Amino acid sequence: MSNLPRKHLFDLPDGMIYLDGNSLGPLPKGVSEAVQKTVEAEWGGQLIGGWNACKWMEQPSRVGNQVGRLIGAPAGSVVMGDTLSIKVFQALAAGLQMRPDRKAILSDTGNFPSDLYMAQGLARFKDQGIELRMVEPEDVAGAIGEDIAVVMLTEVDYRTGRRHDMAAITKAAQEAGAVMVWDLAHSAGALDVEIEASGCEMAVGCTYKYLNGGPGAPAFIYVRPDLVETVEPALAGWLGHDAPFAFDLDYRPGAGIERMRVGTPPVLQLAALEEALKVWNSVTMKEVRAASVHLSDLFISEIEARCPMMSLVSPRDCAVRGSQVSFAFENGYAAMQAVIARGVIGDFRAPNVMRFGFTPLFLDDGDIIRAAEIIEDVMVNKLWNTPEYHARKAVT
Amino acid sequence: MSNLPRKHLFDLPDGMIYLDGNSLGPLPKGVSEAVQKTVEAEWGGQLIGGWNACKWMEQPSRVGNQVGRLIGAPAGSVVMGDTLSIKVFQALAAGLQMRPDRKAILSDTGNFPSDLYMAQGLARFKDQGIELRMVEPEDVAGAIGEDIAVVMLTEVDYRTGRRHDMAAITKAAQEAGAVMVWDLAHSAGALDVEIEASGCEMAVGCTYKYLNGGPGAPAFIYVRPDLVETVEPALAGWLGHDAPFAFDLDYRPGAGIERMRVGTPPVLQLAALEEALKVWNSVTMKEVRAASVHLSDLFISEIEARCPMMSLVSPRDCAVRGSQVSFAFENGYAAMQAVIARGVIGDFRAPNVMRFGFTPLFLDDGDIIRAAEIIEDVMVNKLWNTPEYHARKAVT
Repeated sequence: MSNLPRKHLFDLPDGMIYLDGNSLGPLPKGVSEAVQKTVEAEWGGQLIGGWNACKWMEQPSRVGNQVGRLIGAPAGSVVMGDTLSIKVFQALAAGLQMRPDRKAILSDTGNFPSDLYMAQGLARFKDQGIELRMVEPEDVAGAIGEDIAVVMLTEVDYRTGRRHDMAAITKAAQEAGAVMVWDLAHSAGALDVEIEASGCEMAVGCTYKYLNGGPGAPAFIYVRPDLVETVEPALAGWLGHDAPFAFDLDYRPGAGIERMRVGTPPVLQLAALEEALKVWNSVTMKEVRAASVHLSDLFISEIEARCPMMSLVSPRDCAVRGSQVSFAFENGYAAMQAVIARGVIGDFRAPNVMRFGFTPLFLDDGDIIRAAEIIEDVMVNKLWNTPEYHARKAVT
Repeated sequence: MSNLPRKHLFDLPDGMIYLDGNSLGPLPKGVSEAVQKTVEAEWGGQLIGGWNACKWMEQPSRVGNQVGRLIGAPAGSVVMGDTLSIKVFQALAAGLQMRPDRKAILSDTGNFPSDLYMAQGLARFKDQGIELRMVEPEDVAGAIGEDIAVVMLTEVDYRTGRRHDMAAITKAAQEAGAVMVWDLAHSAGALDVEIEASGCEMAVGCTYKYLNGGPGAPAFIYVRPDLVETVEPALAGWLGHDAPFAFDLDYRPGAGIERMRVGTPPVLQLAALEEALKVWNSVTMKEVRAASVHLSDLFISEIEARCPMMSLVSPRDCAVRGSQVSFAFENGYAAMQAVIARGVIGDFRAPNVMRFGFTPLFLDDGDIIRAAEIIEDVMVNKLWNTPEYHARKAVT
């Protein structure tokens, strides 16, 4: 018997069908109270004593273990902190340090731009001929030569929802002697990721999408258990030090995954995230994934039957698709504004992509049908074709 | 007529005399409500629309300008984000890129260890003979040779409160052709910093100490206005891109200080900080500094008169002292625990330093006298000499 959906665990505005949990998850019930307690009773009541009394210092590892459970990572292999861009930098730098004789980072043009930008900034700063090589997503496996130090890919394409074959690409990378880094931004909380089983060296991800941690929720980094004691932190902050409160003058990496911490943890954001993660209790990722496939397939068939002007850009085969479905439409930006104005929240990605995310914790078949009806009304009756929707500034 | 103190603006526990605002500032009134509004009405009510409707995307620059006002930085020269350790990395990397022919970073042994660690990690990663040279604080000016790319110092020593001569050292650095980076962790909100007038190229700082932003509040970075359009971001995240939502494949730094942004801003932490900064309305930093000197001098004379076993390790001359006063005592760790147990909150820094911070927004002469009486009782009657206080684990 499925535990899904669990709408009662979320505070969703009345009448809204939220198909954008892949961009920013909604507010789980209890989170506001948990944050208020952290602010008033912990910070306000304990002040500096909160670091010990309220176990703030352990938040990054404690919450890391909770996230780890959802991506198939064992305790002690995931730690929270910073932003996903910073975690990408950490992973790339560590990967290059594992393969000092190689100069190339391989990624694909479907990767989220910030991952590519971080690689570019890192390469310019290191200034030793490090090259970011970008190929089309379908050409990745064939492009992993023996000069590649690190393969860095996002499993699910943020625009199309196309999903890489994690096992096959990881295997190809490792056969070529490259380090494999997966970005799980659109995977964690959506797919039944088994990151340890994949064998990849490192993975990173964010928690404000499917994990509902709230705006600005911290990122995570996973390091394969056999590497946590040797991985070299380029961002060598004091909270990754072996003994932060000894205040030694020289850096000495901490035990295990703790070394991937950098500075002071974002205590309020972590309190929100930790409470938000409770919605995953007693649900399995296999169950979530099955429901996501069902909702996505239903949406595709409904939209294709109703809206011939929208063309599917996501893979039709659910095996190679994440938990979002995208359609191309020439006036997609204005159309999405008109759809949003009617309470169906998706988002737009340049140049012409209308993107919809399927998050089975709070969506059911009725939501999908109702959303399709509203989209049909907007599209068939061209309700988007007004100056208001054309002129509006791009949403984030 | 002084506006100080303004205790009514803070929620301080009854009976506590909080001399640790230099480590974690107390909770200003209104912050909990502001955070709750951000969680419930903004995240809960607007969901993804909050990025535009609630101006989350502008938080880092908007709050940066508010912090800038307190450190003598003009609008458009300060931006918030990440942690102080990350901002140190950004500044060091940018400084090295400004002086590509030089290989040394100069700092001092009184700098906060995380700043030194970040430099060490950066040097190891860059792997081009970058050297972190550390000298004693009093030897810095004499050590700035023409091989120094970047001088990176914390203005106020976290342990002793010793204050560097910002104007003189900046001048010496620039005469030798080095880039000057100041860490204002113990300065922002405590001293009447005039960062633009100092002429330094960059500065960084945190906001959870004197600025009362709460545990995990984000850091800031300042770049001198004439350099903001040319400084090169090594941490080249998408929110520092010229057009983040164009999703170009290549990085192109954003206009002005925006380029020093990296990833998604910590919206909840920034909401707390923005509200917390209201306590600085209609008070000048000169006024705060004068009150801090008065409170610190009073504390020194009271402790020296009452507790001969404690020896001052901070400078006696307020001109070269920040807003904290430290005393050495052999059993300082146990002694501080006993003092804290009686409601006077200071902290301890290895190996033997009892540290007290003076934050004139919520402390007055009566607090100082009462604290000195309690400390005298603990010290003269050796109330610290119990297994309980000796055994307790080091606080953070």
